[in-house]
Amino acid sequence: MKLLRVGPPGAERPAVLGPDGTAYDLSGRTRDLDGAFLGELDPAELAAAVAGGEFPVLELAGQRLGAPVPRPGKVVCVGLNYRDHAAEAGAAIPAEPVLFLKASNTVVGPDDEVLVPRGSSKTDYEVELALVIGRTARYLESDAAAAACIAGYTISNDVTERAFQLERGGQWDKGKCCETFNPLGPWLVTPDEVGDPQALGLRLWVNGELRQDGSTAEMIFPVLETVRYISQFMVLEPGDVVTTGTPAGVTMGRPGTAFLQPGDVLELEIEGLGRQRQVLGKA
Amino acid sequence: MKLLRVGPPGAERPAVLGPDGTAYDLSGRTRDLDGAFLGELDPAELAAAVAGGEFPVLELAGQRLGAPVPRPGKVVCVGLNYRDHAAEAGAAIPAEPVLFLKASNTVVGPDDEVLVPRGSSKTDYEVELALVIGRTARYLESDAAAAACIAGYTISNDVTERAFQLERGGQWDKGKCCETFNPLGPWLVTPDEVGDPQALGLRLWVNGELRQDGSTAEMIFPVLETVRYISQFMVLEPGDVVTTGTPAGVTMGRPGTAFLQPGDVLELEIEGLGRQRQVLGKA
Repeated sequence: MKLLRVGPPGAERPAVLGPDGTAYDLSGRTRDLDGAFLGELDPAELAAAVAGGEFPVLELAGQRLGAPVPRPGKVVCVGLNYRDHAAEAGAAIPAEPVLFLKASNTVVGPDDEVLVPRGSSKTDYEVELALVIGRTARYLESDAAAAACIAGYTISNDVTERAFQLERGGQWDKGKCCETFNPLGPWLVTPDEVGDPQALGLRLWVNGELRQDGSTAEMIFPVLETVRYISQFMVLEPGDVVTTGTPAGVTMGRPGTAFLQPGDVLELEIEGLGRQRQVLGKA
Repeated sequence: MKLLRVGPPGAERPAVLGPDGTAYDLSGRTRDLDGAFLGELDPAELAAAVAGGEFPVLELAGQRLGAPVPRPGKVVCVGLNYRDHAAEAGAAIPAEPVLFLKASNTVVGPDDEVLVPRGSSKTDYEVELALVIGRTARYLESDAAAAACIAGYTISNDVTERAFQLERGGQWDKGKCCETFNPLGPWLVTPDEVGDPQALGLRLWVNGELRQDGSTAEMIFPVLETVRYISQFMVLEPGDVVTTGTPAGVTMGRPGTAFLQPGDVLELEIEGLGRQRQVLGKA
Protein backbone atom coordinates (compact mmCIF):
# COMPACT_ATOMS: atom_id res chain seq x y z
CA MET A 1 0.00 0.00 0.00
CA LYS A 2 1.37 3.38 -1.08
CA LEU A 3 0.01 6.46 0.68
CA LEU A 4 0.68 10.01 -0.44
CA ARG A 5 -0.36 13.61 0.05
CA VAL A 6 -1.26 15.74 -2.96
CA GLY A 7 -1.66 19.51 -3.30
CA PRO A 8 -0.13 22.84 -2.34
CA PRO A 9 1.99 23.18 0.83
CA GLY A 10 -0.24 23.15 3.89
CA ALA A 11 -3.30 22.08 1.90
CA GLU A 12 -2.36 18.55 0.85
CA ARG A 13 -5.08 15.90 0.46
CA PRO A 14 -4.46 12.34 1.65
CA ALA A 15 -4.48 9.73 -1.09
CA VAL A 16 -3.68 6.12 -1.84
CA LEU A 17 -2.32 4.49 -4.98
CA GLY A 18 -4.25 1.59 -6.47
CA PRO A 19 -2.48 -1.43 -8.01
CA ASP A 20 -2.38 0.21 -11.46
CA GLY A 21 -0.96 3.51 -10.15
CA THR A 22 -4.27 5.36 -10.09
CA ALA A 23 -4.55 7.68 -7.08
CA TYR A 24 -7.67 7.75 -4.90
CA ASP A 25 -8.69 10.60 -2.61
CA LEU A 26 -8.83 9.53 1.06
CA SER A 27 -10.29 12.83 2.29
CA GLY A 28 -13.63 11.14 2.92
CA ARG A 29 -11.97 8.79 5.39
CA THR A 30 -9.35 10.94 7.11
CA ARG A 31 -8.46 14.60 7.23
CA ASP A 32 -4.78 13.75 6.88
CA LEU A 33 -2.22 10.92 7.05
CA ASP A 34 -1.66 11.83 10.69
CA GLY A 35 -0.61 9.78 13.67
CA ALA A 36 -4.19 8.83 14.54
CA PHE A 37 -4.81 7.48 11.03
CA LEU A 38 -1.47 5.66 10.86
CA GLY A 39 -2.01 4.05 14.26
CA GLU A 40 -5.23 2.40 13.02
CA LEU A 41 -4.10 1.68 9.45
CA ASP A 42 -4.91 -1.80 8.14
CA PRO A 43 -3.40 -2.07 4.63
CA ALA A 44 -5.51 -5.10 3.67
CA GLU A 45 -8.75 -3.38 4.66
CA LEU A 46 -7.74 -0.19 2.81
CA ALA A 47 -6.82 -2.17 -0.32
CA ALA A 48 -10.23 -3.85 -0.23
CA ALA A 49 -11.95 -0.47 0.11
CA VAL A 50 -10.00 0.82 -2.90
CA ALA A 51 -10.95 -2.28 -4.92
CA GLY A 52 -14.56 -1.81 -3.83
CA GLY A 53 -14.66 1.67 -5.33
CA GLU A 54 -15.06 3.47 -2.01
CA PHE A 55 -12.82 6.43 -2.95
CA PRO A 56 -12.97 8.90 -5.86
CA VAL A 57 -10.07 9.07 -8.32
CA LEU A 58 -7.60 11.89 -7.70
CA GLU A 59 -5.90 13.21 -10.85
CA LEU A 60 -2.15 13.49 -10.21
CA ALA A 61 -1.06 15.19 -13.45
CA GLY A 62 0.37 18.64 -12.76
CA GLN A 63 -0.14 18.32 -9.03
CA ARG A 64 2.53 18.81 -6.38
CA LEU A 65 3.30 15.97 -3.97
CA GLY A 66 3.72 16.89 -0.34
CA ALA A 67 5.68 14.87 2.18
CA PRO A 68 3.67 11.66 2.74
CA VAL A 69 3.00 12.64 6.36
CA PRO A 70 2.09 16.02 7.83
CA ARG A 71 4.68 17.82 9.92
CA PRO A 72 6.15 15.22 12.30
CA GLY A 73 6.32 15.71 16.07
CA LYS A 74 10.02 14.99 15.70
CA VAL A 75 12.56 13.67 13.23
CA VAL A 76 15.14 11.41 14.88
CA CYS A 77 18.19 10.63 12.77
CA VAL A 78 20.88 7.99 12.98
CA GLY A 79 24.34 9.24 12.03
CA LEU A 80 27.26 7.27 10.62
CA ASN A 81 25.17 4.12 10.16
CA TYR A 82 27.04 2.77 7.11
CA ARG A 83 30.68 1.71 7.45
CA ASP A 84 31.73 3.26 4.16
CA HIS A 85 30.15 6.61 5.09
CA ALA A 86 31.75 6.62 8.57
CA ALA A 87 35.08 5.99 6.85
CA GLU A 88 34.64 8.81 4.31
CA ALA A 89 33.59 11.14 7.16
CA GLY A 90 36.79 10.25 9.01
CA ALA A 91 34.74 8.93 11.93
CA ALA A 92 35.13 5.73 13.93
CA ILE A 93 32.58 2.94 13.46
CA PRO A 94 30.04 3.70 16.21
CA ALA A 95 29.71 1.17 19.04
CA GLU A 96 26.01 2.06 19.35
CA PRO A 97 23.72 4.23 17.20
CA VAL A 98 24.61 7.92 17.00
CA LEU A 99 21.38 9.93 17.34
CA PHE A 100 20.49 13.51 16.53
CA LEU A 101 17.32 15.46 15.80
CA LYS A 102 16.38 17.39 12.69
CA ALA A 103 13.89 20.25 13.13
CA SER A 104 10.41 19.19 11.97
CA ASN A 105 9.92 22.32 9.90
CA THR A 106 12.72 21.23 7.56
CA VAL A 107 10.32 18.70 5.98
CA VAL A 108 9.20 19.52 2.44
CA GLY A 109 7.75 17.55 -0.46
CA PRO A 110 9.89 15.06 -2.43
CA ASP A 111 10.22 17.35 -5.45
CA ASP A 112 10.20 20.75 -3.73
CA GLU A 113 13.01 23.25 -4.11
CA VAL A 114 15.93 22.85 -1.67
CA LEU A 115 17.47 26.15 -0.59
CA VAL A 116 21.22 26.65 -0.21
CA PRO A 117 21.38 28.64 3.05
CA ARG A 118 22.84 32.14 3.16
CA GLY A 119 26.53 31.98 3.99
CA SER A 120 26.73 28.33 2.93
CA SER A 121 29.88 26.95 1.31
CA LYS A 122 29.28 23.21 1.88
CA THR A 123 25.67 22.19 1.22
CA ASP A 124 25.60 18.41 0.81
CA TYR A 125 23.10 15.59 0.19
CA GLU A 126 22.37 12.27 1.94
CA VAL A 127 19.93 9.66 0.62
CA GLU A 128 18.37 7.76 3.52
CA LEU A 129 15.74 5.17 4.26
CA ALA A 130 13.16 6.84 6.54
CA LEU A 131 10.40 5.24 8.52
CA VAL A 132 7.25 6.68 10.01
CA ILE A 133 6.02 5.64 13.45
CA GLY A 134 2.46 4.31 13.69
CA ARG A 135 2.29 3.35 17.36
CA THR A 136 3.93 4.82 20.45
CA ALA A 137 7.38 3.33 21.05
CA ARG A 138 8.62 3.46 24.65
CA TYR A 139 11.19 1.07 26.15
CA LEU A 140 10.60 -1.56 23.48
CA GLU A 141 12.03 -4.94 24.38
CA SER A 142 12.34 -6.70 21.03
CA ASP A 143 12.65 -6.26 17.29
CA ALA A 144 9.12 -7.63 16.93
CA ALA A 145 7.81 -4.89 19.20
CA ALA A 146 9.71 -2.34 17.08
CA ALA A 147 8.21 -3.75 13.88
CA ALA A 148 4.72 -3.28 15.30
CA CYS A 149 5.44 0.45 15.75
CA ILE A 150 6.37 1.13 12.11
CA ALA A 151 3.58 2.45 9.86
CA GLY A 152 5.71 2.51 6.73
CA TYR A 153 8.84 3.56 4.88
CA THR A 154 9.80 6.45 2.64
CA ILE A 155 12.85 8.32 1.26
CA SER A 156 14.52 11.20 3.11
CA ASN A 157 17.15 13.51 1.71
CA ASP A 158 18.99 14.49 4.90
CA VAL A 159 20.41 17.69 3.39
CA THR A 160 23.35 18.96 5.47
CA GLU A 161 25.56 22.04 5.49
CA ARG A 162 28.95 20.56 6.43
CA ALA A 163 30.61 23.80 7.53
CA PHE A 164 27.62 24.62 9.76
CA GLN A 165 27.58 21.02 11.03
CA LEU A 166 31.26 20.59 11.80
CA GLU A 167 33.06 23.94 11.86
CA ARG A 168 30.76 26.20 13.89
CA GLY A 169 31.15 24.69 17.35
CA GLY A 170 29.33 22.08 19.36
CA GLN A 171 26.62 19.83 17.98
CA TRP A 172 25.58 18.99 14.40
CA ASP A 173 22.21 20.76 14.51
CA LYS A 174 23.27 24.03 12.83
CA GLY A 175 24.01 22.10 9.65
CA LYS A 176 20.98 19.79 9.81
CA CYS A 177 18.05 22.11 10.52
CA CYS A 178 18.15 24.68 7.70
CA GLU A 179 14.96 25.51 5.84
CA THR A 180 13.90 22.84 3.24
CA PHE A 181 16.62 20.43 4.42
CA ASN A 182 14.37 17.34 4.57
CA PRO A 183 12.60 16.38 1.33
CA LEU A 184 10.43 13.40 2.25
CA GLY A 185 8.48 11.07 -0.03
CA PRO A 186 7.04 10.47 -2.56
CA TRP A 187 5.06 7.72 -0.80
CA LEU A 188 4.63 6.13 2.56
CA VAL A 189 4.90 2.45 1.71
CA THR A 190 3.49 0.03 4.27
CA PRO A 191 5.81 -2.68 5.65
CA ASP A 192 3.87 -5.56 4.03
CA GLU A 193 4.70 -4.09 0.62
CA VAL A 194 8.32 -3.15 1.44
CA GLY A 195 9.32 -6.63 2.50
CA ASP A 196 12.80 -6.79 4.02
CA PRO A 197 13.89 -3.22 4.83
CA GLN A 198 17.50 -4.45 4.95
CA ALA A 199 17.57 -5.39 1.27
CA LEU A 200 16.86 -2.12 -0.52
CA GLY A 201 19.16 -0.44 -3.01
CA LEU A 202 19.44 3.34 -2.54
CA ARG A 203 20.94 5.78 -5.02
CA LEU A 204 21.46 9.51 -5.50
CA TRP A 205 22.47 11.51 -8.56
CA VAL A 206 23.72 15.10 -8.87
CA ASN A 207 23.04 16.62 -12.29
CA GLY A 208 22.68 13.09 -13.65
CA GLU A 209 25.94 11.78 -12.17
CA LEU A 210 25.54 8.81 -9.82
CA ARG A 211 27.08 9.78 -6.49
CA GLN A 212 25.61 7.34 -3.94
CA ASP A 213 24.86 3.71 -4.74
CA GLY A 214 24.40 1.56 -1.65
CA SER A 215 22.16 -0.98 -0.04
CA THR A 216 20.37 -0.97 3.30
CA ALA A 217 22.03 -4.37 3.76
CA GLU A 218 25.16 -2.38 4.67
CA MET A 219 23.64 -0.63 7.70
CA ILE A 220 25.62 -1.07 10.91
CA PHE A 221 22.45 -0.97 13.04
CA PRO A 222 19.39 -2.33 11.21
CA VAL A 223 16.04 -0.58 11.25
CA LEU A 224 14.30 -2.62 13.95
CA GLU A 225 17.27 -2.55 16.30
CA THR A 226 17.49 1.21 15.77
CA VAL A 227 13.85 1.82 16.67
CA ARG A 228 14.17 -0.39 19.74
CA TYR A 229 17.34 1.47 20.73
CA ILE A 230 15.86 4.96 20.28
CA SER A 231 12.89 3.97 22.45
CA GLN A 232 15.24 3.45 25.41
CA PHE A 233 16.09 7.17 25.36
CA MET A 234 12.95 8.92 24.16
CA VAL A 235 9.31 8.23 23.40
CA LEU A 236 8.52 7.90 19.68
CA GLU A 237 4.96 8.86 18.81
CA PRO A 238 2.68 8.18 15.83
CA GLY A 239 3.68 10.46 12.97
CA ASP A 240 7.30 10.79 14.12
CA VAL A 241 9.95 10.13 11.48
CA VAL A 242 13.20 8.18 11.92
CA THR A 243 15.95 8.40 9.31
CA THR A 244 18.52 5.66 9.29
CA GLY A 245 21.77 7.08 7.91
CA THR A 246 23.38 7.40 4.50
CA PRO A 247 25.86 5.24 2.56
CA ALA A 248 29.13 6.57 1.15
CA GLY A 249 29.34 9.06 -1.67
CA VAL A 250 28.44 12.39 -0.10
CA THR A 251 30.37 15.44 -1.32
CA MET A 252 32.33 15.64 1.94
CA GLY A 253 33.79 12.23 1.12
CA ARG A 254 34.88 13.24 -2.41
CA PRO A 255 37.74 15.73 -2.12
CA GLY A 256 37.80 18.10 -5.09
CA THR A 257 34.08 17.69 -5.80
CA ALA A 258 32.02 20.90 -5.67
CA PHE A 259 29.33 21.21 -3.01
CA LEU A 260 25.76 21.94 -4.09
CA GLN A 261 24.97 25.21 -5.85
CA PRO A 262 21.70 26.87 -6.89
CA GLY A 263 20.55 25.25 -10.12
CA ASP A 264 21.93 21.80 -9.32
CA VAL A 265 19.50 18.91 -9.67
CA LEU A 266 19.27 16.05 -7.16
CA GLU A 267 17.58 12.75 -7.89
CA LEU A 268 17.10 10.08 -5.24
CA GLU A 269 15.73 6.57 -5.42
CA ILE A 270 15.17 3.68 -3.06
CA GLU A 271 13.96 0.32 -4.38
CA GLY A 272 10.18 0.08 -4.03
CA LEU A 273 9.88 3.54 -2.48
CA GLY A 274 9.92 5.66 -5.63
CA ARG A 275 11.98 8.68 -6.65
CA GLN A 276 12.59 12.27 -5.56
CA ARG A 277 13.88 15.18 -7.68
CA GLN A 278 14.92 18.54 -6.28
CA VAL A 279 16.30 21.65 -7.93
CA LEU A 280 18.57 23.71 -5.68
CA GLY A 281 17.64 27.35 -5.05
CA LYS A 282 18.91 30.16 -2.90
CA ALA A 283 17.66 31.13 0.58
CA MET B 1 0.98 40.10 31.37
CA LYS B 2 1.17 36.55 32.68
CA LEU B 3 -0.41 33.83 30.54
CA LEU B 4 -0.91 30.25 31.68
CA ARG B 5 -2.64 26.98 30.84
CA VAL B 6 -4.77 25.23 33.45
CA GLY B 7 -6.13 21.69 33.54
CA PRO B 8 -5.25 18.06 32.91
CA PRO B 9 -2.57 17.12 30.35
CA GLY B 10 -3.89 17.59 26.83
CA ALA B 11 -7.00 19.44 28.05
CA GLU B 12 -5.52 22.68 29.41
CA ARG B 13 -7.52 25.90 29.20
CA PRO B 14 -5.77 29.16 28.29
CA ALA B 15 -5.85 31.79 31.03
CA VAL B 16 -4.40 35.13 32.06
CA LEU B 17 -3.51 36.46 35.50
CA GLY B 18 -5.00 39.80 36.55
CA PRO B 19 -3.00 42.34 38.57
CA ASP B 20 -4.18 40.83 41.90
CA GLY B 21 -3.30 37.26 40.85
CA THR B 22 -6.84 36.24 39.92
CA ALA B 23 -6.91 33.97 36.86
CA TYR B 24 -9.32 34.60 33.99
CA ASP B 25 -10.39 32.02 31.41
CA LEU B 26 -9.36 32.99 27.86
CA SER B 27 -11.21 30.08 26.19
CA GLY B 28 -13.77 32.52 24.80
CA ARG B 29 -11.03 34.31 22.91
CA THR B 30 -8.66 31.55 21.84
CA ARG B 31 -8.68 27.78 21.84
CA ASP B 32 -5.12 27.73 23.13
CA LEU B 33 -1.99 29.84 23.66
CA ASP B 34 -0.76 28.72 20.27
CA GLY B 35 1.44 30.37 17.69
CA ALA B 36 -1.46 32.14 15.99
CA PHE B 37 -2.59 33.70 19.29
CA LEU B 38 0.94 34.66 20.35
CA GLY B 39 1.68 36.26 16.98
CA GLU B 40 -1.24 38.67 17.42
CA LEU B 41 -0.91 39.19 21.18
CA ASP B 42 -1.16 42.81 22.36
CA PRO B 43 -0.55 42.79 26.13
CA ALA B 44 -2.04 46.27 26.64
CA GLU B 45 -5.24 45.36 24.82
CA LEU B 46 -5.53 42.10 26.75
CA ALA B 47 -4.97 43.87 30.08
CA ALA B 48 -7.74 46.33 29.20
CA ALA B 49 -10.08 43.45 28.33
CA VAL B 50 -9.29 41.82 31.69
CA ALA B 51 -9.95 45.12 33.50
CA GLY B 52 -13.17 45.53 31.53
CA GLY B 53 -14.50 42.20 32.83
CA GLU B 54 -14.47 40.45 29.47
CA PHE B 55 -13.31 37.07 30.85
CA PRO B 56 -14.79 34.80 33.54
CA VAL B 57 -12.73 34.01 36.65
CA LEU B 58 -10.94 30.64 36.57
CA GLU B 59 -10.45 29.06 39.98
CA LEU B 60 -6.85 27.85 40.32
CA ALA B 61 -7.07 26.04 43.67
CA GLY B 62 -6.39 22.34 43.25
CA GLN B 63 -5.83 22.64 39.51
CA ARG B 64 -2.79 21.46 37.61
CA LEU B 65 -0.80 23.95 35.57
CA GLY B 66 0.29 22.85 32.12
CA ALA B 67 3.24 24.25 30.24
CA PRO B 68 2.27 27.83 29.30
CA VAL B 69 2.32 26.94 25.59
CA PRO B 70 1.00 23.82 23.81
CA ARG B 71 3.52 21.40 22.39
CA PRO B 72 6.12 23.49 20.55
CA GLY B 73 7.11 22.87 16.93
CA LYS B 74 10.66 22.67 18.24
CA VAL B 75 12.74 23.41 21.31
CA VAL B 76 16.12 24.93 20.43
CA CYS B 77 18.64 25.00 23.26
CA VAL B 78 21.85 26.90 23.80
CA GLY B 79 24.56 24.88 25.55
CA LEU B 80 27.44 26.13 27.69
CA ASN B 81 26.11 29.71 27.71
CA TYR B 82 27.42 30.65 31.16
CA ARG B 83 31.17 30.81 31.78
CA ASP B 84 30.98 29.15 35.19
CA HIS B 85 28.92 26.24 33.78
CA ALA B 86 31.28 25.74 30.82
CA ALA B 87 34.12 25.59 33.34
CA GLU B 88 32.40 23.03 35.60
CA ALA B 89 31.57 20.96 32.50
CA GLY B 90 35.26 20.99 31.56
CA ALA B 91 34.39 22.68 28.25
CA ALA B 92 36.02 25.63 26.50
CA ILE B 93 34.18 28.96 26.40
CA PRO B 94 32.29 28.76 23.08
CA ALA B 95 33.28 31.19 20.34
CA GLU B 96 29.69 31.21 19.07
CA PRO B 97 26.48 29.74 20.53
CA VAL B 98 26.37 25.93 20.84
CA LEU B 99 22.93 24.77 19.64
CA PHE B 100 21.03 21.54 20.09
CA LEU B 101 17.40 20.44 19.95
CA LYS B 102 15.29 18.88 22.65
CA ALA B 103 12.37 16.69 21.52
CA SER B 104 9.08 18.61 21.80
CA ASN B 105 7.35 15.76 23.59
CA THR B 106 9.65 16.21 26.59
CA VAL B 107 7.63 19.29 27.59
CA VAL B 108 5.49 18.88 30.72
CA GLY B 109 3.88 21.24 33.23
CA PRO B 110 6.00 23.17 35.74
CA ASP B 111 4.98 20.97 38.68
CA ASP B 112 4.59 17.63 36.89
CA GLU B 113 6.51 14.55 37.89
CA VAL B 114 9.95 14.15 36.28
CA LEU B 115 10.88 10.55 35.51
CA VAL B 116 14.35 9.13 36.06
CA PRO B 117 14.85 7.07 32.88
CA ARG B 118 15.39 3.31 33.03
CA GLY B 119 19.11 2.55 33.16
CA SER B 120 19.91 6.07 34.35
CA SER B 121 22.79 6.71 36.73
CA LYS B 122 23.28 10.46 36.17
CA THR B 123 19.97 12.34 35.93
CA ASP B 124 20.72 16.03 36.41
CA TYR B 125 18.90 19.40 36.50
CA GLU B 126 19.47 22.74 34.72
CA VAL B 127 17.49 25.89 35.48
CA GLU B 128 17.20 28.03 32.33
CA LEU B 129 15.55 31.15 31.04
CA ALA B 130 13.30 30.09 28.14
CA LEU B 131 11.59 32.25 25.59
CA VAL B 132 8.66 31.58 23.31
CA ILE B 133 8.63 32.78 19.71
CA GLY B 134 5.66 34.93 18.64
CA ARG B 135 6.65 35.78 15.06
CA THR B 136 8.61 33.86 12.44
CA ALA B 137 12.35 34.46 12.78
CA ARG B 138 14.38 33.91 9.59
CA TYR B 139 17.73 35.55 8.85
CA LEU B 140 17.15 38.34 11.38
CA GLU B 141 19.54 41.24 10.97
CA SER B 142 19.41 42.97 14.34
CA ASP B 143 18.67 42.59 18.03
CA ALA B 144 15.61 44.79 17.53
CA ALA B 145 14.28 42.36 14.92
CA ALA B 146 14.92 39.50 17.38
CA ALA B 147 13.06 41.33 20.14
CA ALA B 148 10.02 41.68 17.87
CA CYS B 149 9.91 37.87 17.50
CA ILE B 150 9.70 37.11 21.24
CA ALA B 151 6.22 36.57 22.68
CA GLY B 152 7.42 36.10 26.24
CA TYR B 153 9.63 34.37 28.77
CA THR B 154 9.26 31.40 31.10
CA ILE B 155 11.32 28.90 33.11
CA SER B 156 12.66 25.63 31.67
CA ASN B 157 14.22 22.80 33.60
CA ASP B 158 16.50 21.31 30.93
CA VAL B 159 16.68 17.92 32.65
CA THR B 160 19.64 15.91 31.35
CA GLU B 161 20.97 12.39 31.78
CA ARG B 162 24.73 12.96 31.77
CA ALA B 163 25.79 9.39 30.99
CA PHE B 164 23.33 9.23 28.07
CA GLN B 165 24.49 12.70 26.94
CA LEU B 166 28.23 12.21 27.13
CA GLU B 167 29.13 8.53 27.42
CA ARG B 168 26.93 6.82 24.80
CA GLY B 169 28.53 8.10 21.59
CA GLY B 170 27.93 11.00 19.26
CA GLN B 171 25.62 13.88 19.99
CA TRP B 172 23.96 15.05 23.24
CA ASP B 173 20.40 14.16 22.25
CA LYS B 174 20.17 10.79 24.02
CA GLY B 175 20.55 12.58 27.34
CA LYS B 176 18.30 15.53 26.52
CA CYS B 177 15.16 13.97 25.03
CA CYS B 178 13.93 11.55 27.69
CA GLU B 179 10.27 11.57 28.66
CA THR B 180 9.28 14.49 31.01
CA PHE B 181 12.71 16.14 30.63
CA ASN B 182 11.40 19.67 30.01
CA PRO B 183 9.16 21.12 32.74
CA LEU B 184 8.07 24.52 31.40
CA GLY B 185 6.25 27.33 33.18
CA PRO B 186 4.40 28.33 35.29
CA TRP B 187 3.65 31.41 33.19
CA LEU B 188 4.48 32.96 29.87
CA VAL B 189 5.41 36.50 30.89
CA THR B 190 5.31 39.11 28.14
CA PRO B 191 8.48 41.13 27.47
CA ASP B 192 6.95 44.44 28.64
CA GLU B 193 6.53 42.92 32.11
CA VAL B 194 9.89 41.09 32.21
CA GLY B 195 11.93 44.21 31.52
CA ASP B 196 15.62 43.48 30.93
CA PRO B 197 15.98 39.71 30.28
CA GLN B 198 19.69 40.04 31.12
CA ALA B 199 19.07 41.04 34.73
CA LEU B 200 17.16 38.10 36.19
CA GLY B 201 18.28 35.98 39.12
CA LEU B 202 17.77 32.23 38.60
CA ARG B 203 17.96 29.58 41.31
CA LEU B 204 17.42 25.86 41.77
CA TRP B 205 17.12 23.78 44.92
CA VAL B 206 17.35 19.99 45.41
CA ASN B 207 15.49 18.78 48.51
CA GLY B 208 15.66 22.35 49.86
CA GLU B 209 19.41 22.78 49.28
CA LEU B 210 20.34 25.69 47.01
CA ARG B 211 22.39 24.27 44.12
CA GLN B 212 22.23 26.90 41.35
CA ASP B 213 22.21 30.64 42.07
CA GLY B 214 23.07 32.72 39.03
CA SER B 215 21.97 35.70 37.00
CA THR B 216 21.12 36.02 33.32
CA ALA B 217 23.61 38.90 33.38
CA GLU B 218 26.29 36.19 33.24
CA MET B 219 25.20 34.76 29.86
CA ILE B 220 27.97 34.61 27.26
CA PHE B 221 25.51 35.21 24.40
CA PRO B 222 22.54 37.34 25.46
CA VAL B 223 18.96 36.46 24.53
CA LEU B 224 18.50 38.78 21.55
CA GLU B 225 21.86 37.91 20.01
CA THR B 226 21.01 34.22 20.47
CA VAL B 227 17.67 34.48 18.66
CA ARG B 228 19.27 36.47 15.84
CA TYR B 229 22.04 33.86 15.62
CA ILE B 230 19.70 30.84 15.57
CA SER B 231 17.70 32.45 12.75
CA GLN B 232 20.77 32.29 10.49
CA PHE B 233 20.64 28.48 10.66
CA MET B 234 16.98 27.57 10.96
CA VAL B 235 13.55 29.15 10.82
CA LEU B 236 11.97 29.78 14.23
CA GLU B 237 8.18 29.74 14.15
CA PRO B 238 5.46 31.05 16.48
CA GLY B 239 5.13 28.70 19.44
CA ASP B 240 8.74 27.44 19.22
CA VAL B 241 10.72 27.53 22.47
CA VAL B 242 14.34 28.61 22.91
CA THR B 243 16.22 27.82 26.12
CA THR B 244 19.29 29.85 26.87
CA GLY B 245 21.65 27.74 28.96
CA THR B 246 22.22 27.13 32.64
CA PRO B 247 24.56 28.69 35.20
CA ALA B 248 26.98 26.66 37.35
CA GLY B 249 25.87 24.29 40.07
CA VAL B 250 24.63 21.20 38.21
CA THR B 251 25.38 17.82 39.78
CA MET B 252 27.98 17.04 37.08
CA GLY B 253 29.98 20.04 38.35
CA ARG B 254 29.87 18.91 42.01
CA PRO B 255 32.00 15.78 42.36
CA GLY B 256 30.76 13.58 45.19
CA THR B 257 27.19 14.89 44.96
CA ALA B 258 24.52 12.27 44.22
CA PHE B 259 22.60 12.53 40.96
CA LEU B 260 18.79 12.73 41.09
CA GLN B 261 16.81 9.80 42.50
CA PRO B 262 13.10 9.01 42.63
CA GLY B 263 11.59 10.96 45.54
CA ASP B 264 13.93 13.95 45.20
CA VAL B 265 12.27 17.36 45.03
CA LEU B 266 13.39 20.09 42.63
CA GLU B 267 12.40 23.73 43.02
CA LEU B 268 13.28 26.35 40.42
CA GLU B 269 12.78 30.09 40.36
CA ILE B 270 13.54 32.97 38.02
CA GLU B 271 12.88 36.55 39.10
CA GLY B 272 9.49 37.70 37.84
CA LEU B 273 8.75 34.36 36.15
CA GLY B 274 7.49 32.39 39.16
CA ARG B 275 8.45 29.00 40.54
CA GLN B 276 8.42 25.33 39.55
CA ARG B 277 8.39 22.28 41.81
CA GLN B 278 8.91 18.69 40.62
CA VAL B 279 9.05 15.40 42.46
CA LEU B 280 11.23 12.78 40.78
CA GLY B 281 9.62 9.49 39.82
CA LYS B 282 10.67 6.36 37.96
CA ALA B 283 10.15 5.62 34.27
